[in-house]
Amino acid sequence: MLLSQIHEPADLKKLSLEQLTPLAAEIRQFLIEKLSVTGGHLAPNLGVVELTIALHYCYNSPQDKFIFDVGHQAYVHKILTGRMDRFDTLRKHNGLCGFVKRSESEHDVWEAGHSSTSLSAAMGMALARDLKGEQHRVIAVIGDGALTGGMAFEALNHIGHEKKNLMIILNDNEMSIAPNVGALHNYLTKIRSGRNYLRAKDEVEQLLKRIPAIGGKLAKTAERMKDSLKYMMVPGVLFEELGIKYLGPVDGHDLPGLIESFKQANNVNGPVLVHVLTTKGKGYTPAEEDSHKWHGLSTPYKIETGQLIKAVGNPTYTDVFGQTLIELAGVDERIVAVTPAMPGGSGLVKFGERFPGRMIDVGIAEQHAATMCAALAMEGLKPVFAVYSTFMQRAYDQIVHDICRQNANVMFAIDRAGFVGADGETHQGVYDIAFMRHIPNIVLMMPKDENELRHMMKTALDYNDGPIAYRYPRINVPGVPLDEELVSIPIGSWELVREGDTVTIIAVGPMVQVAEEAAEMLKRDGVSVAVVNARFLKPLDEDMLLKLANGASKIIVLEEASQAGSLGSAVLEFYAAHDINGLNISLMGIPDRFIEHGSIKDQLMEVGLTADEVVREVQKFRTDQHFAFGKKVKPY
Amino acid sequence: MLLSQIHEPADLKKLSLEQLTPLAAEIRQFLIEKLSVTGGHLAPNLGVVELTIALHYCYNSPQDKFIFDVGHQAYVHKILTGRMDRFDTLRKHNGLCGFVKRSESEHDVWEAGHSSTSLSAAMGMALARDLKGEQHRVIAVIGDGALTGGMAFEALNHIGHEKKNLMIILNDNEMSIAPNVGALHNYLTKIRSGRNYLRAKDEVEQLLKRIPAIGGKLAKTAERMKDSLKYMMVPGVLFEELGIKYLGPVDGHDLPGLIESFKQANNVNGPVLVHVLTTKGKGYTPAEEDSHKWHGLSTPYKIETGQLIKAVGNPTYTDVFGQTLIELAGVDERIVAVTPAMPGGSGLVKFGERFPGRMIDVGIAEQHAATMCAALAMEGLKPVFAVYSTFMQRAYDQIVHDICRQNANVMFAIDRAGFVGADGETHQGVYDIAFMRHIPNIVLMMPKDENELRHMMKTALDYNDGPIAYRYPRINVPGVPLDEELVSIPIGSWELVREGDTVTIIAVGPMVQVAEEAAEMLKRDGVSVAVVNARFLKPLDEDMLLKLANGASKIIVLEEASQAGSLGSAVLEFYAAHDINGLNISLMGIPDRFIEHGSIKDQLMEVGLTADEVVREVQKFRTDQHFAFGKKVKPY
Repeated sequence: MLLSQIHEPADLKKLSLEQLTPLAAEIRQFLIEKLSVTGGHLAPNLGVVELTIALHYCYNSPQDKFIFDVGHQAYVHKILTGRMDRFDTLRKHNGLCGFVKRSESEHDVWEAGHSSTSLSAAMGMALARDLKGEQHRVIAVIGDGALTGGMAFEALNHIGHEKKNLMIILNDNEMSIAPNVGALHNYLTKIRSGRNYLRAKDEVEQLLKRIPAIGGKLAKTAERMKDSLKYMMVPGVLFEELGIKYLGPVDGHDLPGLIESFKQANNVNGPVLVHVLTTKGKGYTPAEEDSHKWHGLSTPYKIETGQLIKAVGNPTYTDVFGQTLIELAGVDERIVAVTPAMPGGSGLVKFGERFPGRMIDVGIAEQHAATMCAALAMEGLKPVFAVYSTFMQRAYDQIVHDICRQNANVMFAIDRAGFVGADGETHQGVYDIAFMRHIPNIVLMMPKDENELRHMMKTALDYNDGPIAYRYPRINVPGVPLDEELVSIPIGSWELVREGDTVTIIAVGPMVQVAEEAAEMLKRDGVSVAVVNARFLKPLDEDMLLKLANGASKIIVLEEASQAGSLGSAVLEFYAAHDINGLNISLMGIPDRFIEHGSIKDQLMEVGLTADEVVREVQKFRTDQHFAFGKKVKPY
Repeated sequence: MLLSQIHEPADLKKLSLEQLTPLAAEIRQFLIEKLSVTGGHLAPNLGVVELTIALHYCYNSPQDKFIFDVGHQAYVHKILTGRMDRFDTLRKHNGLCGFVKRSESEHDVWEAGHSSTSLSAAMGMALARDLKGEQHRVIAVIGDGALTGGMAFEALNHIGHEKKNLMIILNDNEMSIAPNVGALHNYLTKIRSGRNYLRAKDEVEQLLKRIPAIGGKLAKTAERMKDSLKYMMVPGVLFEELGIKYLGPVDGHDLPGLIESFKQANNVNGPVLVHVLTTKGKGYTPAEEDSHKWHGLSTPYKIETGQLIKAVGNPTYTDVFGQTLIELAGVDERIVAVTPAMPGGSGLVKFGERFPGRMIDVGIAEQHAATMCAALAMEGLKPVFAVYSTFMQRAYDQIVHDICRQNANVMFAIDRAGFVGADGETHQGVYDIAFMRHIPNIVLMMPKDENELRHMMKTALDYNDGPIAYRYPRINVPGVPLDEELVSIPIGSWELVREGDTVTIIAVGPMVQVAEEAAEMLKRDGVSVAVVNARFLKPLDEDMLLKLANGASKIIVLEEASQAGSLGSAVLEFYAAHDINGLNISLMGIPDRFIEHGSIKDQLMEVGLTADEVVREVQKFRTDQHFAFGKKVKPY
């Protein structure tokens, strides 16, 4: 076992070039075995085994800075930097992070989770290095999918202009998560398929020699023509035109070839891009054959067959969304679905098969997606922007400036709202209420179950007064019966799902169920608890809020969202605006810190969003003898 | 006068080609005269006179859709679509908007204010047209500066892939607002300067004929070589590689040439980009000579001399920021300033002259700027991200994911916080508190005057525990004396600027002065008012808030920011978290709608952020006989 000898990159350097290939095989075996138990990003990491080995073999981390775009393809890097023994805990609570994580290792110098940030990070590190007069290399590893994100282009534009020494490794596996789309992808494909152009170089030179000697004006032209031939020789003209030296394409599974390319790149003065061709899932047949499926696994699998071991359970909210959208689109041809490179994750694969012209995958491009939706809506269509809560953060300005300011009839299907589990802090969908609620014109909903989600989708479709959003969590649905007919829910109406006198819990989404559990527990304790399903986060149900002010003596707002600025704040603002004081209101939400990876249950426990904690909050209130409405204020 | 005959585009079409040139001269004269009184975006509009005439001459608005990126270069469009007589009201309250505005005209089909959105809009409109089976042209007019914004590239990537019929007019004036930077700019410059390459075409063809006849392998190579010559002939290879047909460059002030180009473009199947070269300020010498200064004028000017008629007054907060940053950077060489194409607007011109290597203009690229700042900070530098509040919206995800999550020591200098006046609703800086306050790890400040701003800048520099921001308004400073020594303000400490018993006003930034005015007025009325300068928006001054709970019986939170989610909500959340009920708290902020252009004073009046309104709020409270702490709650 070579792998057992590697505890840090220095150990790797002791190996001979010949030993690297068997080492790569060992790493593949290790990944396939470990992830068969934990799940995780298998295919991306199998694709970069040789690339990562070559990087650590040729450069000196952490002096040289490795920046992994998205960071889910850093497992090999983790293995080579002393974290092999922690892979049993991968993506578990308090375990090894599925992304680059600075607190784990000095070799992790930049964290990510969202794509397309690595080039900006590399530019910053190169600038800092030069300003400080230091000498080291800065190397960004970015996938072809991530390269379509607008901020990557912003960085390229700056990098090509400033001419700092930095190295970009374009890890081209023809995939983002879904198969890649876009002109850039087509361009890269042309390079891949045109590799033999390189071989033509010699032939062309022979040809040029045959041109008879000429003088005058034509000589100059001939010279220019020879110059122009570089476009034929150098496939990366697009990068070259932006001022970035292009090298490649290189076979990303050929270790000597990679190492040779890095040597060439080291001799370039200024920014250089090495185009590396890799195969996602390389070395594990099931993953090679369906790298989309094997991109990120949330389940274990059987190594021999590649069969995923899925827990039996209800469908997810994503499934229900996808199915319902097909139903609605069948009768309303104005519906188009827009996804930023997430047709699978967003449950739109079947929709795309059924309505190919009405399913628009724009690539990793949330900003463009949002603004394009505004234009679609303004031309009378009914676009659904299907996006994860965390990635919607990229489109905040477009939501404000293009969608809400123009009051366009865009429907938002916000998936992964709330905690997301194993992906952890980079992916938590806990801010969207807080960053959308203050934007004028938007309606914001969250269902308590799948039946309500379906009605909300109908509500959104029927609504023609501006943007409207429904958000739903990354969990299985509770499995309630589905109404046959879909009807619009009155905008801004909440639902009293349980009557009670003493305490009122205003809950959102899956927290409605938590509230009901707490209510049951408290009932046994003799406390009568009302539960309100606050299915509209904006606008609020003002009538109900006014009624509640005269009801129970304690109100708890329970939401799986940032406590600052979300529904709880909206409730407080409402009562302040209506001069209603003296209510005893507790906000139970997510505290002011980033919550790391683990199961969703771990995360809810960590922040106290459980029935037990709700009960405790009520008991605390009782102990403080606050049971009379507006009677007493805690002294200070 | 030809101009007086033009009330709608149809009138323009009645003119002969020969009449268009004198018409252009009339329009220029009109703009120069009108804007000499109102101010406005003179230079950009003088640059597009012929371009806009040619568009309306060749196409049929509003059936054909004109989408103006940023929209401040649409004055000529407004003139040609019947709004000539409203130019005296340009950018005034209830007057003609300085940007494209749908409520003004059916010819305004897409609004903007932020840059780089036009290509996404065009793509959406082209998609909608094809889905609906309609026939019309979609034409986006985008500047070379706006093209560097990442979302424009996201759109290009999609446009080049989908191959819908749409037309992009690249209005290349070698300028965004500041002189352009970036590799794309260098690339366009190369095209401009290489225009005579086109003339070489014939020569090259002659040359090719001289190549002796050859067979076999070499024949193929020769064929390929001929193909590759297109790169020499077609300067727009970068766009062509992305699947977009390139035409140009065309002289943007040559009407017959423009019209001919559009005819060519009409024959292209799929997306086409027409590269139009224009001169900002064309036809008015002072504006041609300094188009940066004449980009957007907030003042009148003397036509003959080009002298700006500036009101005498104190410096702006922007000036104080720029000057103080030079002072700080002189003694702390870790400071670098990062600006997304706004060195002038952000007060960094002198800083850049003094510290050229430490002033980084990334072009219109807020996302890249933010993430690059994170990397600079993580390498031990002290980056200042100088950005307008409204444009910072573009970097929300990068602030969450890259800066705050990694707790990088980035300093934010947030300019134009609060109302911005004539630029209106697209530019209001009223959401940054609401969209930043819920992000963990950030410190958020706003000074009440220039002296405090300077101390805050020192505070930010001394702070090493994560990101820290100071925001300041687009107004002149009050002109208070400046302390000689800059000292750190304790993080999270507020300042009691006025003692009082009955009412407490918690105010932010310029609202502190408004609160003091109100307090003076109320004092005459016998009401004792305390005023607190809430200079930290996050974290709050918890000790002071606890004291205030036992003090005055009425608290008003006064802020020039979205009432939803800003400081007022934070105060309510704090008291709820501390189980302090029964306080009578009013939030005075900006209501839940977009506020249009006018003077800042108009805008403050419109939303009631004036001393008079504060007095009225207090009087209302008195009338309701609420003067005893926690005594009475309004019944419902």
